[in-house]
Amino acid sequence: MKIVKIDHIGIAVRALDEIDPALRELLAASGVPHEEVVEDQGVKTTSYRAGESGLEFLETLDEENGPVAKYLAKRGPGLHHVCLRVDDLEETLAHLKERGVQLIDEKPRLGAGGCRIAFIHPRSAGGILIELSAPAS
Amino acid sequence: MKIVKIDHIGIAVRALDEIDPALRELLAASGVPHEEVVEDQGVKTTSYRAGESGLEFLETLDEENGPVAKYLAKRGPGLHHVCLRVDDLEETLAHLKERGVQLIDEKPRLGAGGCRIAFIHPRSAGGILIELSAPAS
Repeated sequence: MKIVKIDHIGIAVRALDEIDPALRELLAASGVPHEEVVEDQGVKTTSYRAGESGLEFLETLDEENGPVAKYLAKRGPGLHHVCLRVDDLEETLAHLKERGVQLIDEKPRLGAGGCRIAFIHPRSAGGILIELSAPAS
Repeated sequence: MKIVKIDHIGIAVRALDEIDPALRELLAASGVPHEEVVEDQGVKTTSYRAGESGLEFLETLDEENGPVAKYLAKRGPGLHHVCLRVDDLEETLAHLKERGVQLIDEKPRLGAGGCRIAFIHPRSAGGILIELSAPAS
């Protein structure tokens, strides 16, 4: 059981165009960003590649509701979650649960791109939202 | 000019032991964490490896002063900065400056482990503190 890499980090921003165009060009130099609207979360994501990881910027489509809108209202722009790729998701979740770690998802669920994912509750992670992921099996 | 990888992400926490021991063990499965006290910043850092990147947890040694103490008081635990490894730091800084991006460091300065680093001002980066780095030359 171990962490293989940072799969991606999710960064909440008020609007992507608050990032200077020259900086967005630098981010895009490693590949065309992938954009996706996640209706049920009320967010638009724009993902840039950075080596083996991704930088996923989250903009809210709904100024008042949804997890990212609430995050921004309370804390301002910043890290929304860190997604860590693990070598064995089921074994890792079972082990963490047995040790008393509070899990939002005790079993893997389907994430973007067919990945299997599960979130750890920030109460067990120093206030940080950690997502664990594994490739589609 | 491009981003090579996420070098590390700096995560502000009130205390590392607010992260469940089982989760810290998982983080440490990829290698013994590196601890460092940075006196002039009033922080203690604990860095875990995650593939080609690092997860750097920042705890404040001074409850009232220093950048991490102020960050925590204002926003709670979360992303303090993202450090991106670039292929050519001088060229990247010159290009960003020419395009009007606000830089905290217009020239590289010495960072941990002999790296050369420079920070971009959050005003140009959607409120996010971005560090650019290059290996010691």
